Amino acid sequence: MLIPITSRDNKTVKLVRALERKKERVKRGLYFAEGVRLVKEAVRDAEEDIQFILVSSSFAEKNEFFINSLDESGKTVYTAKDVIFQSMCRTETPQGIGAVLKMRPTQNQWMGTERYILLIDGVSDPGNLGTMIRTAEAAGVDKVCIFEGSADLYNPKTVRATMGSLFRVPFWIGSAEEIFPELKRLGFQIFAAALHHSVPAETVEIPSKRAVVIGSEARGVSETVLQMADTCVRIDMKGRVESLNASVAAGILLYQFK
Amino acid sequence: MLIPITSRDNKTVKLVRALERKKERVKRGLYFAEGVRLVKEAVRDAEEDIQFILVSSSFAEKNEFFINSLDESGKTVYTAKDVIFQSMCRTETPQGIGAVLKMRPTQNQWMGTERYILLIDGVSDPGNLGTMIRTAEAAGVDKVCIFEGSADLYNPKTVRATMGSLFRVPFWIGSAEEIFPELKRLGFQIFAAALHHSVPAETVEIPSKRAVVIGSEARGVSETVLQMADTCVRIDMKGRVESLNASVAAGILLYQFK
Repeated sequence: MLIPITSRDNKTVKLVRALERKKERVKRGLYFAEGVRLVKEAVRDAEEDIQFILVSSSFAEKNEFFINSLDESGKTVYTAKDVIFQSMCRTETPQGIGAVLKMRPTQNQWMGTERYILLIDGVSDPGNLGTMIRTAEAAGVDKVCIFEGSADLYNPKTVRATMGSLFRVPFWIGSAEEIFPELKRLGFQIFAAALHHSVPAETVEIPSKRAVVIGSEARGVSETVLQMADTCVRIDMKGRVESLNASVAAGILLYQFK
Repeated sequence: MLIPITSRDNKTVKLVRALERKKERVKRGLYFAEGVRLVKEAVRDAEEDIQFILVSSSFAEKNEFFINSLDESGKTVYTAKDVIFQSMCRTETPQGIGAVLKMRPTQNQWMGTERYILLIDGVSDPGNLGTMIRTAEAAGVDKVCIFEGSADLYNPKTVRATMGSLFRVPFWIGSAEEIFPELKRLGFQIFAAALHHSVPAETVEIPSKRAVVIGSEARGVSETVLQMADTCVRIDMKGRVESLNASVAAGILLYQFK
């Protein structure tokens, strides 16, 4: 169904704008994913979660075939005037397409087949969180556990930085106190990234069931979580470098433990 | 020498603003590095390049000891009213300190002791370029060669993302045609990052003299450079991930070849 939007006061426009705020996202259980690549991946990997798709008039004009295929697959597609579409986007140069999706149910349980877990303990930048999730999927991580105090999974910047991994990776949103005993019971060895009192990651013998903890950009892994980990690991740095970019450090560790 | 700045029309203020533009940076051979950490590292690692330091009034009030130590070491320190300082910065929340430095002389020659080289072929985002330089120093890279068509080394975003590595890593700014024959003559093996027609990086036996080429975010390593490389390498990706974040991919490769 193709539905034109001509007014800024349209209730769909208002809904999408409201989804910029975490409170509104949580209340409605919805989020907005913007950009061609994200929408294509949503259609492929999270079709059942798509509530509707929004396109700008000029995007619709240039992509008739794609819009028709969305329409034929039974999706609701709103076409909004370019200025109205732009008013719904936070990116500087929006691509003219976005989708509103249902939040994914978190999978706060174990399948029993997991071998490789990423634990996120307080990563505060949504871009870093999203990039880590993207890298985690590429490295073969089976589940990403996000502790309270980290950036929001459905923040527009997180969503964008995942580049679609958000639609595919299983998540567990919870507390370290809840997740760690489970991991230990299941025989996981837990490695926490830490600059001090740690061994170089490359010297570690990697067990088949392993979990890697990445901490906050400013303060690292929290003290309580460090105490629960089996081994603290670091990335050796030469020169006078004091730290690596958080996403880069996570990427290096995730590939060393893969 | 402590010199107050009270007018937006002050010539120092105009100079710093002009340095936002590459053309002006090149003309004057100067650039602006903003932030506490960068200025501290500049004082430690590039003292002779510092032309002068600029601080905001409120930074000066809160950091009397630090400002006096700069003054006593013979540096010119300008103190500008907060609003004037902010008008010179591009960051949203400037920290209140910056330094104008002479560009570093490029080292378009070999020491003979180099073992590990990073070649940058068209990385266009200044943040990515800076992050790659930071990671390169940490991984023990001896020289970073930047080909034409890449982001500017002295763009404020590059400078910030290097987190001080800019003051320490030796650079060669030139063309692939100039650098590749040199590397081959010196016995380097050249590995280019490429998604297709490549072998997994982790399967490669790493020679003592190695050079890694990282290409543009959108198009990868250029065709002519790929042809000059000895081996194309890729980072294996699981799931449905099509690519990694450029800085993350560079980080993983730089640590695999270290």
